[in-house]
Amino acid sequence: MLGVVLRAARATRAASTKFPALDTFVRRHIGPGEKDVAEMLKVVGASSLTQLGDMIVPASIRKDTLSARAGKGEFELLQELKGIADQNKIARSLLGMGYADTITPTVILRNVVENPAWYTPYTPYQAEIAQGRLESLVNFQTMVTDLTGMDISNASLLDESTAAAEAMSMCFDNHEGTFFIDSNVHPQTIAVCKTRAEFLGIPIKVGNWQEVKGEEALCGVLVQYPNTLGAIEDYRALSAKVHQAQGLVVAATDLLALTKLTPPGEWGADVCVGTSQRFGVPLGYGGPHAAFLATRDQYKRKMPGRIIGISKDSRGERCYRIALQTREQHIRREKATSNICTAQALLANVSAMYAVYHGPAGLTEIATRVHDLAATFASGVKNAGFGVPAAASFFDTVTVDSTSPQKQEAVLAALAANNINVRVLSPTRVCVAFDEKSTGAEVDTLFKCFGVAGGSDSFASVNTAYPAGVGRTSAFLTHAVFNTFHSETEMLRYIFYLASKDYGLQQGMIPLGSCTMKLNATTEMIPITWPGFNNLHPFAPISQAQGYQYLFKDLSEKLAEATGFHSVSLQPNSGAQGEYTGLAVIKKYLASIGQGHRNLCLIPASAHGTNPASAAVLGMQIVVVKSQSNGNIDFEDLVAKCETHKDNLAAIMITYPSTHGVFEDNVKDVVDTVHKYGGQVYMDGANLNAQLGLTSPGDIGADVCHLNLHKTFCIPHGGGGPGMGPIGVASHLAPFLPSHPVVASNTNPSAMLPVSAAPWGSASILPISWVYLHLMGSRGLVTATQMALLNANYMRKRLEGHYKVLFSGANGMCAHEFILDMRPITDATGIGAEDVAKRLQDYGFHAPTMSFPVPNTLMIEPTESEPKSELDRMVDALISIRHEISLIEQGKMDKVNNPLKNAPHTQDMVISSKWDKPYSVETAAFPTPRSRKYKVWPTVGRIDNAYGDRNLTCACPPLEVYF
Amino acid sequence: MLGVVLRAARATRAASTKFPALDTFVRRHIGPGEKDVAEMLKVVGASSLTQLGDMIVPASIRKDTLSARAGKGEFELLQELKGIADQNKIARSLLGMGYADTITPTVILRNVVENPAWYTPYTPYQAEIAQGRLESLVNFQTMVTDLTGMDISNASLLDESTAAAEAMSMCFDNHEGTFFIDSNVHPQTIAVCKTRAEFLGIPIKVGNWQEVKGEEALCGVLVQYPNTLGAIEDYRALSAKVHQAQGLVVAATDLLALTKLTPPGEWGADVCVGTSQRFGVPLGYGGPHAAFLATRDQYKRKMPGRIIGISKDSRGERCYRIALQTREQHIRREKATSNICTAQALLANVSAMYAVYHGPAGLTEIATRVHDLAATFASGVKNAGFGVPAAASFFDTVTVDSTSPQKQEAVLAALAANNINVRVLSPTRVCVAFDEKSTGAEVDTLFKCFGVAGGSDSFASVNTAYPAGVGRTSAFLTHAVFNTFHSETEMLRYIFYLASKDYGLQQGMIPLGSCTMKLNATTEMIPITWPGFNNLHPFAPISQAQGYQYLFKDLSEKLAEATGFHSVSLQPNSGAQGEYTGLAVIKKYLASIGQGHRNLCLIPASAHGTNPASAAVLGMQIVVVKSQSNGNIDFEDLVAKCETHKDNLAAIMITYPSTHGVFEDNVKDVVDTVHKYGGQVYMDGANLNAQLGLTSPGDIGADVCHLNLHKTFCIPHGGGGPGMGPIGVASHLAPFLPSHPVVASNTNPSAMLPVSAAPWGSASILPISWVYLHLMGSRGLVTATQMALLNANYMRKRLEGHYKVLFSGANGMCAHEFILDMRPITDATGIGAEDVAKRLQDYGFHAPTMSFPVPNTLMIEPTESEPKSELDRMVDALISIRHEISLIEQGKMDKVNNPLKNAPHTQDMVISSKWDKPYSVETAAFPTPRSRKYKVWPTVGRIDNAYGDRNLTCACPPLEVYF
Ligand SMILES: Cc1ncc(COP(=O)(O)O)c(C=O)c1O
Ligand SMILES: Cc1ncc(COP(=O)(O)O)c(C=O)c1O
Ligand SMILES: O=C([O-])O
Repeated sequence: MLGVVLRAARATRAASTKFPALDTFVRRHIGPGEKDVAEMLKVVGASSLTQLGDMIVPASIRKDTLSARAGKGEFELLQELKGIADQNKIARSLLGMGYADTITPTVILRNVVENPAWYTPYTPYQAEIAQGRLESLVNFQTMVTDLTGMDISNASLLDESTAAAEAMSMCFDNHEGTFFIDSNVHPQTIAVCKTRAEFLGIPIKVGNWQEVKGEEALCGVLVQYPNTLGAIEDYRALSAKVHQAQGLVVAATDLLALTKLTPPGEWGADVCVGTSQRFGVPLGYGGPHAAFLATRDQYKRKMPGRIIGISKDSRGERCYRIALQTREQHIRREKATSNICTAQALLANVSAMYAVYHGPAGLTEIATRVHDLAATFASGVKNAGFGVPAAASFFDTVTVDSTSPQKQEAVLAALAANNINVRVLSPTRVCVAFDEKSTGAEVDTLFKCFGVAGGSDSFASVNTAYPAGVGRTSAFLTHAVFNTFHSETEMLRYIFYLASKDYGLQQGMIPLGSCTMKLNATTEMIPITWPGFNNLHPFAPISQAQGYQYLFKDLSEKLAEATGFHSVSLQPNSGAQGEYTGLAVIKKYLASIGQGHRNLCLIPASAHGTNPASAAVLGMQIVVVKSQSNGNIDFEDLVAKCETHKDNLAAIMITYPSTHGVFEDNVKDVVDTVHKYGGQVYMDGANLNAQLGLTSPGDIGADVCHLNLHKTFCIPHGGGGPGMGPIGVASHLAPFLPSHPVVASNTNPSAMLPVSAAPWGSASILPISWVYLHLMGSRGLVTATQMALLNANYMRKRLEGHYKVLFSGANGMCAHEFILDMRPITDATGIGAEDVAKRLQDYGFHAPTMSFPVPNTLMIEPTESEPKSELDRMVDALISIRHEISLIEQGKMDKVNNPLKNAPHTQDMVISSKWDKPYSVETAAFPTPRSRKYKVWPTVGRIDNAYGDRNLTCACPPLEVYF
Repeated sequence: MLGVVLRAARATRAASTKFPALDTFVRRHIGPGEKDVAEMLKVVGASSLTQLGDMIVPASIRKDTLSARAGKGEFELLQELKGIADQNKIARSLLGMGYADTITPTVILRNVVENPAWYTPYTPYQAEIAQGRLESLVNFQTMVTDLTGMDISNASLLDESTAAAEAMSMCFDNHEGTFFIDSNVHPQTIAVCKTRAEFLGIPIKVGNWQEVKGEEALCGVLVQYPNTLGAIEDYRALSAKVHQAQGLVVAATDLLALTKLTPPGEWGADVCVGTSQRFGVPLGYGGPHAAFLATRDQYKRKMPGRIIGISKDSRGERCYRIALQTREQHIRREKATSNICTAQALLANVSAMYAVYHGPAGLTEIATRVHDLAATFASGVKNAGFGVPAAASFFDTVTVDSTSPQKQEAVLAALAANNINVRVLSPTRVCVAFDEKSTGAEVDTLFKCFGVAGGSDSFASVNTAYPAGVGRTSAFLTHAVFNTFHSETEMLRYIFYLASKDYGLQQGMIPLGSCTMKLNATTEMIPITWPGFNNLHPFAPISQAQGYQYLFKDLSEKLAEATGFHSVSLQPNSGAQGEYTGLAVIKKYLASIGQGHRNLCLIPASAHGTNPASAAVLGMQIVVVKSQSNGNIDFEDLVAKCETHKDNLAAIMITYPSTHGVFEDNVKDVVDTVHKYGGQVYMDGANLNAQLGLTSPGDIGADVCHLNLHKTFCIPHGGGGPGMGPIGVASHLAPFLPSHPVVASNTNPSAMLPVSAAPWGSASILPISWVYLHLMGSRGLVTATQMALLNANYMRKRLEGHYKVLFSGANGMCAHEFILDMRPITDATGIGAEDVAKRLQDYGFHAPTMSFPVPNTLMIEPTESEPKSELDRMVDALISIRHEISLIEQGKMDKVNNPLKNAPHTQDMVISSKWDKPYSVETAAFPTPRSRKYKVWPTVGRIDNAYGDRNLTCACPPLEVYF
């Protein structure tokens, strides 16, 4: 059947040539081969892939949604994309504003960014097989706390601006007082805070920080350090005043500058936010980059985002895992103050590795040189009659008073001729920001443009120190990890050492339900490290970004078609961020039609935690819609609640197919009902992988939908990010899509303020999805969807007799994922989902999603990319585990001291003369012949989560010996 | 100390700018940090690195050989190199002649070619920790034997032309009869065979194969299939005739064509040679590519090169290892008929992976399309009045009769305007060769250039089949490995699965003496996969290769300076090939001065096997010079032998510092003596890593020297190649350096014929060494040499009390490597070098070089790139093993059933309820705390080599289940 499809896919091309490319991708992307598909169809009882789709997707919404478009060969497509990348003109952007060019050490570029062992894993929920990247994230946290002078940091947020908005929410925790924002905070950050504040009803004031008296009702103050114009201000007195008013001081700050400047923690800041982009992460036209949020110990429970902490395992050994999860959206749901889920783990790791590679001395050297170059520039232009501040009052950014518009225009013309972008503040003022790529030669060029007589060496201000009170005196990054791996050999080995502890898609399947861990193909990944996509500043003139603009337009069109919508916004840089944006757009729309009072959001009980959290972060009232026992939305309850809240109903958020893995038959009725009551329909697109080409959110009648490009559209999960969460909207919502204060990403006057720091979110990973769409062609995409359904139903069928499978759609089939219910087993044996998950590690597998959406269940999503052989191995492992459980049931194995409860088993547990378990070491370690042949070992035993939360440590131990 | 050097290295730059780049490389390349160096100097008893060098390198030759040249920052150097690459103009080269453009599947490109786990390992001598690449090499062998129809293949040779020359040597084994070469063999192959034949005295005849009558005295016949003009000839009758004359038929052939054509094994060939380049290995301006040589079972013991075979291990399980080593130079030495050592393992693996990825059906599809495009082209140009052969008589290469010079000139002008290179045979004949990158659009362009009215589709000859007798009927690549991993997910996992079995530099040191396993830095590796270096045909017009030409010139100058020589040839593509070329140049020179009768080569007993083998392959008489008990050359014996052979003395081959790891004090006397007796001095440059910047072959007085760029100059070893072995020569030898029949690489009329298929050998890896030289600067190179000496002497000092260290230079010091003598230990305990080597695997280490140059010893070369911590760990492991040995000595451990004799221990040996050894599983698996934390496991037990040679199998089992 697949063969038919593949042949058909080629036939579409034969129209244009008798010699189609052979390096077609569909067969590379899809796991099962032709024969496998035939066998599997038999098992699930369908006669063809097409029929299978028709059996599963309700007829009421089944529609061929994609227009015919042939897939391209991998080689020709990369050539085409190279041409697009070449349309981007790479200038030197000395624009600052939170983005600084940087040199990614090649050993990190190649062995982290370009290594599937680092980019394919999921968020480290299975911590025993994720100790490598967890250690690296602790390095990240340590780097942030040390440089900022804070006590605790999270393991990344989406961008500096959203981090500032999150900090604002922390400040507003007690729901009173104005949040004051210094006007010299980066403009995009001010704008994102305004977006967030508006919906939450946080009173905001933007002004000069010196206006703050400490007598007004303040929840907090946000300052930038150094500020957006480059100035290093002394905020000590401000902090005292804010604290007096019971407010918190938030410092948006710059990690590189902090190697030279008094850290905010030492002058009174309570929360620090910023981006670690300039620590080795390319500009990427805006992202992805890892932002951070760090705070004092006393506020740790208010922190958003994942925090990695240290705990102990079943052997009493130190280990890492996600800490304090009770703060997070998936636990707090409608009580959440943040909706962050996917963050920027991979980029956090890159920047942590950058710090490991350079160490404190190396970072200081880089910072010193940047400051020296800025100071040299300042003294030169001063000599030529421009106005500049004193070297001790800036770090890397120099505000230049050009004294006259004519003079400035001549300078700007010369800069343009030299391919240099600077920030223009006014007709007589510019800002010039230096970075790691700046050189003496660059200053020489600038001098020519500014009419300075003499070269950089003649004005060299080398080792210009900061005066007491301004300069940093405290040590930082004294831990062994930042002072050991400074030769490339050692760095390389550290990177591989950590990777050796982790499980990724390069080793086996990651059947995480709802996460869609499909192939992240190399051809999709290759372009993202091309300079043509990597070296653009997000605020570079649009004329320099024509390649990107073309790609955005084309991608948006394809995504609009795929979702059945009118318009797409590429700004939201995660799924949760997409939810937030979609709901915000709904609210803007409702306001525009005089329905601004509507503020209630219906959410099914089974919704992902980000759904209620996003609604909560928009200040919406949340009402939960019940599920029926078969898992579907309780339609009566829905109607009743619509009726009850008809005056206030703003929206419903539905996931389709549902998080129960089912295409609910009556989805159109749900949509129609909500519409009838004046609400809008938000569709969570996390499960689009089951819909694409067979139906679409737009066709179902939704008004808006986000797409997790890191699920259906192949952006790798990076161990917890990056992701992209663009939204598609119906035409009535399009005018409200977000714009941006620096680069107008939506020119409609009704556009809402931005939700992200960058106009097009994490632009540089969009080529991944673009390549996927073009390699697959429309037929390929449909086949992928059908295969996702087939793989899931095949596994389900094979497991049915062994486990209780929860929920079914028509014909007793699931969509692209299904749920195994562990509750009856727990009742009988005490064995629960976690035990099975950990035991799967002994079998050499990554566990399915645990206890979402139903407690004590396992949700399996194989995706279309897994071959039949891997599905069978996983099924065999689960059946074998079920057999182990039956030994407990039959009393043949102890209820406590058994391979499931003791799982996972580490090498040193089973390689021990003291082995004293009532089962053999072979049972523990090699439960199948395959695990004997090829197994990814857990490097720690089962982790004690409670211990870690009781004894919270989230930074590297001060001294440690590696390897 | 190192700090001083680093600061000094920066100071050299300060002359030009006050803002030197910070991403300097010396500190990244060198393992030990400043403090380490101070400690280590104390241990070895030197006051500074400079003094250390002076203590070790004899004053008589000690000289600062490098002119001041600052090292560059990694970022700026890559930019500079990008500019150089951009000077290469990438045209479409439809030139054929053994080089065809190809699409490297990106999953292979990124995860094999660009993955340190694949590119850093050494030749798989420690087979228990090399099962991954050994399996892949067996795939390569299977691919070759299946496609050619031969019984057994080796695991790569250097290039097709040298493979043909090796085949000629096989044919000439009984030393009689002419070797007949068809004139339509590729010209470079004819030339390389001539070179080889001349020195070995093989009578060669080049002519039309149809002239062969089978009555003349023939040792063999070489034909190309399809031939260099593209024609598929029927060699059945020829084969019968040659066999009748007791000769062998050698077919130089094309693996892709063989998917469509009757394989040579089915029409009578006895030996097949060729290149697997077009199976996914970029053109690279000539290399590196993997050549192959396959033959019938009866000739297997005459085969050159490494052969991987299947054997069983201590558990009785199947495993892979190098087979039939008794054929190889290191055993046969002066009796060798081939000197091949470093080959092209990495490229063999790439092409094997290409076959695994595409499978038999995919390869056939590619071949069919190439042939269809060629046939379409032929029918179009025929229609326009050109003369072409019938489609059934060619595969991918069409010889076109232009009918008139004017017509051809117009075509060539049009082709040039379209950036297309074709092969010009005469004023009225061209050859056009199609490849995997050819498309219908390309044929359309060709049609325009040839004045064909209509497009490719109008002349499409699709699925043009070959007639019976010409077309292939037999199946090939039916093994599971070629029919399983066709989705990218499976391919990726297979690549990582194999890599997980192997030990590489990304995991720990590989202290192989004589092999110089130093850092292969990422910045050195990045450029080699740039299209600007990768996509050039070696026979493209020089005007298109200006970037390469600049790089060759600059690199040659730097290497000439480093060796103290006048000129450098970049043609030899391995160290052994360099030896061969150097000796050949000496012989040419001697002939030019009327000393052509001189044909005797003196070689010290301790020389590497390639030295006598190279001399033997040149037909030289070899006389061994004795060693003294201290390991040095026995000077009296030398003088005596010079005297005895004074009329016939051609050369001496010396290695310096010697293979004993010692700078012999009297090296100048040796040189002078040989010169006095009319001989030339060949220096084996394998140990240049101990000399660079402190002395040089030229300064010592040698006449010629090869450099293993894959040792001192950072080309990674690739698991057994690629390498490059350029030679430096004194001015009197320069005129004789090799040229090339297609592209004149040496325009001197005295130039010898080529030694390699490509004019500049494996050109595309030369950027690695170029980058290294420019990143290091001269100070950096000197520091590297000093640190290589320090690291070795530090380890030696720490081990001295525990093991007997063989041989010393002045001050009781070694050079960059040293030898541990296991013989006294063996006498006392029965434990030998192999036992220690295998036990080191249990400790998580790769063993040193075993039994070279002295049997039952271990030779340790740490290189400058290993950090002190790793040196200490290795020393601690060796000391701990020594302690284990003393338990045997003391009778506390059994002489046979002990951890050393049973080593290495696999996971399933120690994870077993049946463990019955007289020591614990912990002793077996975790002899140190570090091995518990981070250990590379051997995946098989100790291998039974004899069993494998007795039961030789060198191909994949026909059916096999993976994972
Ligand atoms: C159903 C569902 N909705 C929303 C999200 C949130 O997406 P993101 O993690 O990109 O913020 C997820 C993520 O796993 C999800 O599974
Ligand atoms: C001393 C010495 N000479 C020559 C060679 C041969 O070099 P290659 O393997 O590149 O042919 C080697 C390789 O190990 C060597 O160590
Ligand atoms: O002593 C030296 O640093 O060379």
